[in-house]
Amino acid sequence: MKIAILQPSDVNDDFAQQVKDLFSQLNDTIEQVNLDEVFKPENAITFAYCMDKDKMVGIALMCTYTVISGYKGWVEDVVVDKAYRGQGLGRKLMEKLVDEGKKDGLSEILLFSNDKRKAAISLYKSLGFKQKDSGLYVLKTN
Amino acid sequence: MKIAILQPSDVNDDFAQQVKDLFSQLNDTIEQVNLDEVFKPENAITFAYCMDKDKMVGIALMCTYTVISGYKGWVEDVVVDKAYRGQGLGRKLMEKLVDEGKKDGLSEILLFSNDKRKAAISLYKSLGFKQKDSGLYVLKTN
Repeated sequence: MKIAILQPSDVNDDFAQQVKDLFSQLNDTIEQVNLDEVFKPENAITFAYCMDKDKMVGIALMCTYTVISGYKGWVEDVVVDKAYRGQGLGRKLMEKLVDEGKKDGLSEILLFSNDKRKAAISLYKSLGFKQKDSGLYVLKTN
Repeated sequence: MKIAILQPSDVNDDFAQQVKDLFSQLNDTIEQVNLDEVFKPENAITFAYCMDKDKMVGIALMCTYTVISGYKGWVEDVVVDKAYRGQGLGRKLMEKLVDEGKKDGLSEILLFSNDKRKAAISLYKSLGFKQKDSGLYVLKTN
């Protein structure tokens, strides 16, 4: 099992299709953004992935951004293949992102998780994430 | 009262000091990031601000980022000067960011607000933001 940070040059059609299929396990209703858009030069993204030989079995993405309150990471799109859950791959992917964030000098990393996703929340807490006394709000704009 | 999007070329020492003073009203304990860091070319930021003549009285920042689940905006650092609250400036700043986000083709805009900030939450809801069934988690990394 290999955990690594995806480089734009690693992306080919097979890779992109595997990400697409894997992401569908998280959400099969939304229109996915193509990987070439995710990797456009102006997008500050750290893309951790896990391969079992040639099979993509997990991904976790982190955008980095700078505001007055800090240089931060924002994690989204964390997915582990259903057939590979319970093996600690989510933890390894998150540890990879946190390591990269620390190397990069981030002040903090933020993420959200649906209140029903008890296993994910337990994982995040075990990695040191603490719940903020804040609600998360969304406005659909298209 | 002028509401506009700040351009990097608008930033001078007086401007930077006014942002610093204003931001201290939101949080006077954290170390603020300098505006030149916020406006570095690789940081995708939309910076709305409000001036009463030469006085900076409000700011609201939005980062934009692309992940598989969408092209999104993430709002942080919304502050209105204490002496100018209750005049709808927060609404105007947020409307400016939402307008920019729509023009830019964002799929959604996200933000968080402390559960105690009832006026802010009421504002966000009145703009169409809906609370997600998700908690927000943070890991300090420095």
